[in-house]
Amino acid sequence: MNGYSTATYRVFDEQADFEKKALGIAVGLTVGSWTELPETTKRRMEKHLGQVVSIDVHEPDSSGGDERYADITIAYPDINFSRDLPALLVTAFGKLSMDGKIKLLDLQPSGEFLSAFPGPKFGAKGVRALLGVHDRPLVMSIFKSVIGYDLEGLREQFLQQALGGVDLIKDDEILFENPLSPLEKRVNVCQEAAKQARETTGQQLIYFTNLTGPTFKLRDNAKRAIDAGANGLLFNVLAYGFDALAELAADPEIRVPIAAHPAMAGAVYPSPYHGIAAPLLLGKLMRIAGADLSLFPSPYGSVVMPKEENLAVRDSLLNDKLPQAPVFPVPSAGIHPGLVPLILHDFGPEVVVNAGGGVHGHPGGAAAGGQAFRQAVDAVRSGVSLEAYAETHPELRSAIQRWGVRTS
Amino acid sequence: MNGYSTATYRVFDEQADFEKKALGIAVGLTVGSWTELPETTKRRMEKHLGQVVSIDVHEPDSSGGDERYADITIAYPDINFSRDLPALLVTAFGKLSMDGKIKLLDLQPSGEFLSAFPGPKFGAKGVRALLGVHDRPLVMSIFKSVIGYDLEGLREQFLQQALGGVDLIKDDEILFENPLSPLEKRVNVCQEAAKQARETTGQQLIYFTNLTGPTFKLRDNAKRAIDAGANGLLFNVLAYGFDALAELAADPEIRVPIAAHPAMAGAVYPSPYHGIAAPLLLGKLMRIAGADLSLFPSPYGSVVMPKEENLAVRDSLLNDKLPQAPVFPVPSAGIHPGLVPLILHDFGPEVVVNAGGGVHGHPGGAAAGGQAFRQAVDAVRSGVSLEAYAETHPELRSAIQRWGVRTS
Repeated sequence: MNGYSTATYRVFDEQADFEKKALGIAVGLTVGSWTELPETTKRRMEKHLGQVVSIDVHEPDSSGGDERYADITIAYPDINFSRDLPALLVTAFGKLSMDGKIKLLDLQPSGEFLSAFPGPKFGAKGVRALLGVHDRPLVMSIFKSVIGYDLEGLREQFLQQALGGVDLIKDDEILFENPLSPLEKRVNVCQEAAKQARETTGQQLIYFTNLTGPTFKLRDNAKRAIDAGANGLLFNVLAYGFDALAELAADPEIRVPIAAHPAMAGAVYPSPYHGIAAPLLLGKLMRIAGADLSLFPSPYGSVVMPKEENLAVRDSLLNDKLPQAPVFPVPSAGIHPGLVPLILHDFGPEVVVNAGGGVHGHPGGAAAGGQAFRQAVDAVRSGVSLEAYAETHPELRSAIQRWGVRTS
Repeated sequence: MNGYSTATYRVFDEQADFEKKALGIAVGLTVGSWTELPETTKRRMEKHLGQVVSIDVHEPDSSGGDERYADITIAYPDINFSRDLPALLVTAFGKLSMDGKIKLLDLQPSGEFLSAFPGPKFGAKGVRALLGVHDRPLVMSIFKSVIGYDLEGLREQFLQQALGGVDLIKDDEILFENPLSPLEKRVNVCQEAAKQARETTGQQLIYFTNLTGPTFKLRDNAKRAIDAGANGLLFNVLAYGFDALAELAADPEIRVPIAAHPAMAGAVYPSPYHGIAAPLLLGKLMRIAGADLSLFPSPYGSVVMPKEENLAVRDSLLNDKLPQAPVFPVPSAGIHPGLVPLILHDFGPEVVVNAGGGVHGHPGGAAAGGQAFRQAVDAVRSGVSLEAYAETHPELRSAIQRWGVRTS
């Protein structure tokens, strides 16, 4: 529907009249009342009235093993809200979020609404271009906790990771502004270490510095980091709202890719009955707002998201249904080199293989850890099993001895 | 513990070793690893290490009717994070939010952390002072949906509400910047109407204008509204993050009270297994961040929060456990005059009686609706039953005929 943005909800209710419920949403979240309005008012208000698009009722089977719910899609007139994500979210899931068992499954903003969002400045393709890597999945390494580290310690850890040949290194999301490793100095020493590693590896490297601090200083902090040499930013989007990301991504002076961290997302997506579905929260909304990479819990580790949900997040980031550029999916947590074939099988080639413990916990250290990941990627690309490839690649061999190979 | 901020979680797990789990959190979310560190490193890192404060395991009873969980309290060294709410939240419930069935029940920031937050500029007491009302609960009226209204329609609706003698009028939270009623003009006509009503009522009135738009323009928009005459702001805190509220509240140029709207809170608080508990989300965090009033779903209406949870939110807003000024609780949704005795019984005198339909749906119109609420409040204060008071107060009588009186 032209000029309307739609929202799809899953509403659980044992006995509700879902038609009535849907109408109540369409009217209640737009013009407030309808049937009792005079005809002249109706004519004036019609363009502001929400519309019920569809209602799919799921009746429980006779065994009583599941629950009664309906997937309800409502179209909200674009004329009712401004062109920012808080306005869309508050319209579609503000008050309604508190109305019983209801989960926001999806938003389909109108083309007109979407046209207000330039989206990722780089996206998956642009990040590849920055690195000059077009023919393989990327490898990212996460700083092992560096709270309490001084600049020298930080530098050394960065260097070891960089020497392993990873493409991307990201700060720990809980590293905030602090006297031991303040933002600009942190960027300095890490970029120095990157340069030093480049002499050995010959590779480009993006370092995602954690962008933190008060909301209204985020833009300044981003520019300070960039002026100091940062070539990437990590951002805890959900702690600041999607609009902060959208404004940072749209800022012409912030000319570096932004990696969206899912910190706090677990407060929102996991319940079947409440919150916002992961493919929307960590997929579509991140993409509209302009993340270049989006991290989310992998289906392999201890912090788990079911695989279907993971692949739906991936699809939201990469599909061709949005005008915003595709975003690199970064399934994270529990990743070791022995998982690389499975990750590439599940996610395809447009993925970032991201590891913390799987790099730092390598028996040969972080540099060997990075190398093992790169070797695992090369093995898959060559169509060789990890075990076979490991015969001539000792770093991969050690990794496999340590963590094994998981094929499903 | 001095220099530590604590977080309490409810962790559900059928078989976990909760001691191990708690230690894993305390180490994992701070220094990353501990037991394997060399002694010299330990000495250096000790001040950054999280501490397990307590573990209360709840074993299910033999009937199997409930679940196994533990309430775990962890102390995080203040030295690890900066003095802003995103840093505290990402530290305590960033990655951890995604780690299975875990709900953040409470945060107890250290005195040092709290000292960075001036809190509400007015609070309940300051709002009373602005109004000159010290001896009764306040009455707030919510605009009935005014999407699609022009300035004249808006003005008329405001006037009718104001004539009813309410103390506070708030915008609908889904009224965004729009060509029919742009921010400054909206403030103008509403304040004109307020002035006109004052000639009849003799009362002060605060109009909470909805503060919306891009995050980095919020401060400017707030000042534009204030320059145009706004004497209150409504803010959808969760769409922008707690820090935006904290910065607005701390801004010396924003010299009007801020009412925090709970839009989107239902994505976060209702699940027992995930998210952030309502007393923290809509109580303590709103207070630390500096809301002067906090709206939350009442236990009386269709949008329901259980009464114990409601009263815990109230307690978080009003108790004497924080340096920040107490905040007016505003239980909302489903409120009509016949509920006033119950509300005052449940919430005590420091409460805002807030109604939309209960004002606008009055058979005599919105002005009569406001009067009925004021009469209901007067009846309770005089120790007279609503029914008896209604004998000499026709507006209250009509309200009771329409909605009845609910005593429990």
